[in-house]
Amino acid sequence: MTTHHLPEVGIIMGSKSDLPVMQDAVEILKLLGARIEVTIVSAHRTPDRMFDYAKGAAARGLKVIIAGAGGAAHLPGMVASITHLPVVGVPVKSSNSIDGWDSVLSILQMPNGIPVATVALNAAKNAGILAAQILAVSDKQIAQNLLSYKAELAKKVEESAREVENEGI
Amino acid sequence: MTTHHLPEVGIIMGSKSDLPVMQDAVEILKLLGARIEVTIVSAHRTPDRMFDYAKGAAARGLKVIIAGAGGAAHLPGMVASITHLPVVGVPVKSSNSIDGWDSVLSILQMPNGIPVATVALNAAKNAGILAAQILAVSDKQIAQNLLSYKAELAKKVEESAREVENEGI
Amino acid sequence: MTTHHLPEVGIIMGSKSDLPVMQDAVEILKLLGARIEVTIVSAHRTPDRMFDYAKGAAARGLKVIIAGAGGAAHLPGMVASITHLPVVGVPVKSSNSIDGWDSVLSILQMPNGIPVATVALNAAKNAGILAAQILAVSDKQIAQNLLSYKAELAKKVEESAREVENEGI
Amino acid sequence: MTTHHLPEVGIIMGSKSDLPVMQDAVEILKLLGARIEVTIVSAHRTPDRMFDYAKGAAARGLKVIIAGAGGAAHLPGMVASITHLPVVGVPVKSSNSIDGWDSVLSILQMPNGIPVATVALNAAKNAGILAAQILAVSDKQIAQNLLSYKAELAKKVEESAREVENEGI
Amino acid sequence: MTTHHLPEVGIIMGSKSDLPVMQDAVEILKLLGARIEVTIVSAHRTPDRMFDYAKGAAARGLKVIIAGAGGAAHLPGMVASITHLPVVGVPVKSSNSIDGWDSVLSILQMPNGIPVATVALNAAKNAGILAAQILAVSDKQIAQNLLSYKAELAKKVEESAREVENEGI
Amino acid sequence: MTTHHLPEVGIIMGSKSDLPVMQDAVEILKLLGARIEVTIVSAHRTPDRMFDYAKGAAARGLKVIIAGAGGAAHLPGMVASITHLPVVGVPVKSSNSIDGWDSVLSILQMPNGIPVATVALNAAKNAGILAAQILAVSDKQIAQNLLSYKAELAKKVEESAREVENEGI
Amino acid sequence: MTTHHLPEVGIIMGSKSDLPVMQDAVEILKLLGARIEVTIVSAHRTPDRMFDYAKGAAARGLKVIIAGAGGAAHLPGMVASITHLPVVGVPVKSSNSIDGWDSVLSILQMPNGIPVATVALNAAKNAGILAAQILAVSDKQIAQNLLSYKAELAKKVEESAREVENEGI
Amino acid sequence: MTTHHLPEVGIIMGSKSDLPVMQDAVEILKLLGARIEVTIVSAHRTPDRMFDYAKGAAARGLKVIIAGAGGAAHLPGMVASITHLPVVGVPVKSSNSIDGWDSVLSILQMPNGIPVATVALNAAKNAGILAAQILAVSDKQIAQNLLSYKAELAKKVEESAREVENEGI
Repeated sequence: MTTHHLPEVGIIMGSKSDLPVMQDAVEILKLLGARIEVTIVSAHRTPDRMFDYAKGAAARGLKVIIAGAGGAAHLPGMVASITHLPVVGVPVKSSNSIDGWDSVLSILQMPNGIPVATVALNAAKNAGILAAQILAVSDKQIAQNLLSYKAELAKKVEESAREVENEGI
Repeated sequence: MTTHHLPEVGIIMGSKSDLPVMQDAVEILKLLGARIEVTIVSAHRTPDRMFDYAKGAAARGLKVIIAGAGGAAHLPGMVASITHLPVVGVPVKSSNSIDGWDSVLSILQMPNGIPVATVALNAAKNAGILAAQILAVSDKQIAQNLLSYKAELAKKVEESAREVENEGI
Repeated sequence: MTTHHLPEVGIIMGSKSDLPVMQDAVEILKLLGARIEVTIVSAHRTPDRMFDYAKGAAARGLKVIIAGAGGAAHLPGMVASITHLPVVGVPVKSSNSIDGWDSVLSILQMPNGIPVATVALNAAKNAGILAAQILAVSDKQIAQNLLSYKAELAKKVEESAREVENEGI
Repeated sequence: MTTHHLPEVGIIMGSKSDLPVMQDAVEILKLLGARIEVTIVSAHRTPDRMFDYAKGAAARGLKVIIAGAGGAAHLPGMVASITHLPVVGVPVKSSNSIDGWDSVLSILQMPNGIPVATVALNAAKNAGILAAQILAVSDKQIAQNLLSYKAELAKKVEESAREVENEGI
Repeated sequence: MTTHHLPEVGIIMGSKSDLPVMQDAVEILKLLGARIEVTIVSAHRTPDRMFDYAKGAAARGLKVIIAGAGGAAHLPGMVASITHLPVVGVPVKSSNSIDGWDSVLSILQMPNGIPVATVALNAAKNAGILAAQILAVSDKQIAQNLLSYKAELAKKVEESAREVENEGI
Repeated sequence: MTTHHLPEVGIIMGSKSDLPVMQDAVEILKLLGARIEVTIVSAHRTPDRMFDYAKGAAARGLKVIIAGAGGAAHLPGMVASITHLPVVGVPVKSSNSIDGWDSVLSILQMPNGIPVATVALNAAKNAGILAAQILAVSDKQIAQNLLSYKAELAKKVEESAREVENEGI
Repeated sequence: MTTHHLPEVGIIMGSKSDLPVMQDAVEILKLLGARIEVTIVSAHRTPDRMFDYAKGAAARGLKVIIAGAGGAAHLPGMVASITHLPVVGVPVKSSNSIDGWDSVLSILQMPNGIPVATVALNAAKNAGILAAQILAVSDKQIAQNLLSYKAELAKKVEESAREVENEGI
Repeated sequence: MTTHHLPEVGIIMGSKSDLPVMQDAVEILKLLGARIEVTIVSAHRTPDRMFDYAKGAAARGLKVIIAGAGGAAHLPGMVASITHLPVVGVPVKSSNSIDGWDSVLSILQMPNGIPVATVALNAAKNAGILAAQILAVSDKQIAQNLLSYKAELAKKVEESAREVENEGI
């Protein structure tokens, strides 16, 4: 059995309301050439589903998991407690959040033994890039795509620099 | 089968290093006449054990669970996601905590549907009193003990008031 | 005299402006089958009314009190100082609040001896669920309703998971 | 009946453990010539005593009340809710405080209608000076003492300035 | 020369943009029967004017000064450094404020020797009430007005309580 | 070769989206008579460009650099690490910022050896004035312009003071 | 040329004073069977060295970089801006840190395009485990070691649970 | 009259207790070849002295002022309001500070028109370097000294790098 068409990156989030934020991870990973799957898994409302997802992740061929959640965000840390795959955590600023501090600290401050690779508040795009960087350790095509992406970022800055300089502010 | 000797309050904590803080819950609950059990359950290092503990809690006769944890403290919230028993969460200020904010917010800011009854930082004694208050809703003896305890608190304040007044500060 | 029709949960708040938040507690408790009463009690503007309410609560048959307040929120803690009933505190993010930190800390950080079961900022729904969990310790019907409610929460997550998966994001 | 020997400033605190901090208010008020009384009143452990103290304060001749408390510090605000006297609040950094933020916000962020004149964390000396300033509005001797005290403060700075300048750093 | 028509309370603010907030102090003091004056004094843009204002305040008959300012709010503290009158500080949440923390801490955390009676963020109404309480120490009419005001506050809560109770929520 | 027409102040920012904030530095520096240049330099997306800019700055005649950036704002500090010119840092409150704290702390808390002259959140106008003050140490015209500017600020406050006083609030 | 003996993980830190914290990454990576190198690279004091290190990292065979720094911690983000390798950032609580918030936010809040995989404050051990998890995506031996390590963590919790239970607390 | 021996940098602080922190500015400025003077000036306890100091600073030949203060730190901002010289502010973490946030925000968050060049908490050394950088705009010797100092910083990092590498960690 080949695994070449199986998803490599699992993108999960605690609620469908997190999708507008997490969509950025989906898009950048497609752009960078990674195979993904997306679904909803709530640590608090579907703990069994969360356990099953995390326990089966490696066997199903996933190599990285991106988990986004808001408030007392336990999804990234709990998934990381169950699987040995690298887990990227996205703190999502939800509606009753205390300015995002709750999700940032709930994801970042994991105890010794169980890391979560935390990115900035709402930074699902960076979570996607980080997942691609992890795949790129053993995938030359994605590594190449990352280098092109970085070059593109620089080019856009230089273009906007020329615009600002030429406007004679 | 009678359940009169089964523990009513389960006191759990993420690590043995939380015991000096959590001991206060043990002592106040003994004083207030509640039957307790104490053990270590780590959401992050023993997720299966945590699931088993929470799933079996009600069937074993527990009526309230007190869970203490530090840092990105997921134990109280995850236990609350699995059982329908009331869960009292104790934020523990652990060594690499960011001033306790991480455990406070990780326990307090639970999403809609899954409450954790959070007490103050390191306030395991108050967690014990709260558990006793919950038992007291249907246990007249514990209710009576709580009233005596409150009277005792007031008496001690009045005594220290007299001391301060008499010292002629 | 039977107490079967007396309110079991008293829901109070410092100001009518807290009602849009606190209404969630009312609705979830009705759904879960608890008998409630609702009124306005201000610790700061009606201290006598607050004392009378808290002192008479147990005698009138209340088993749990939910108290919501914003800013320097003293209502939950002061009610807890007077009654031995469990008090659930809801920090309300009021207009001149400093991001909600003031009400969170004023309710959560109670001194030893007088706990308040604090829930997340504006989380009156969770306060209602917690009150129901407390009643469920000795009320099998409410316990059954809580189990159904938890199952319903899980079902909704699974439905939204299927939606997201089928949309082929 | 003359009131010339009655205390003008009541200094209260939630616990005898606050006394080392609150002692500064006692000393500066004696220095500035105000008549004081000192005692322990806990909003949470002796709510009745707190009510009685606050209700009787004006009738007993008190003109200002200084109240110090830590954590979820309700004493200054509750006293202010009961009396119409000016209440000066001292946030005390107690042992399980979250860096003092809890007592600062619990005292400062009072709702409209019920002010507390809040001073800095642990700043009982400033609470005493503020109380003296309030008395000085109608007490020329205390006003004069305040002016001397301010002059003394300036003189000490000038002395230490000369020391530093002469040390030829 | 009689001083019976001189202003007793000086209300100052760092910028005309603070007026919508500070207006509340004006109104409540008029309601409570205090004589006031209002003007703009900026510690940072008009330091000389600030010095003159503060130095002349007591001589012109002022008994209390209310000072409002935002950001690195130095006006209340600097005025307090110059005059021996009680100074009430109002932290104003200005546009580029870091959530109001800057003005709160700049006003509250005064060093020993120079207190500012700080009220809640934007709480100019409470600043006015506090100023009235200070005047009331030696002005029976204002004391009476304060008692009526407190009674009115309580009455309004009781009315809204009846509304909520009657709505049969 | 004369340098009298070369820019003295380089204004850079991490992204064109910072321009609405940074524009204030441009305008005040023009008003104060300083010669400026403006462009986009991203520490993270164009690290080479950043290095080149900073390394060549002194040689090209720049005397001060103003750098604005948001989030984990490394631009001011990295430029300061490369050049020995004074660098003024402007924390910009960007869209996913945690209330501005991230950019403030990333710019302010530089390690020993490499200072950044940090101004308030979004305070590009103050960055411009500070740059002018630095030039004014050896440029009498700019010093004169600063004195006029300060006088103008005071005059405007006095005008608004008269307005408020005359409105008879 | 074989790369089987080249370091896979580069561990860098801004100052030798970070070594006691960063040592944990060294030890856990050795335990988990990864080849490492360790050195000092300061973004602020040796920007050229930092550029050279980051630019040459991939070519020298490094697969992951762990970078620790305190205060306005720019090292992890700047390295990530230059290389496309995954960079794990360790916020170090240095002596003049503002409670660690500065290093946490300076590392975590990276802009879109340039992620840093941030771990908890001082959590160099977790940084090491995360680096091993990244290597384990294409290294079965390290994957196996991680599974053993996780099993060991669980076993230790269970042992301490038995101790606590047997002590009959 | 020549000014070649007059102090160029005035170093002031609110209290002699700030001297251990501020001493770092003294030493680095001597090392970098700047002429300094040092004294105590308290904004709050000696407002007149502060006014005189700031008003006379430029005329006495000062080119930069470094002002350190703790708590509600008004000294840097008030000096900046009076003089047009660049003012470098050092937030000092004093004993009753709320973790240094109070002095940081009181100095940093100055309103438009009156900048203070703020450095990190307790970073008097950086204040000294920044003052030297400002002088270096028109003083080639100090510019040269700064370049040597930067080279020395880099050299020390490279030495400690070699130590760590050779220890074979």
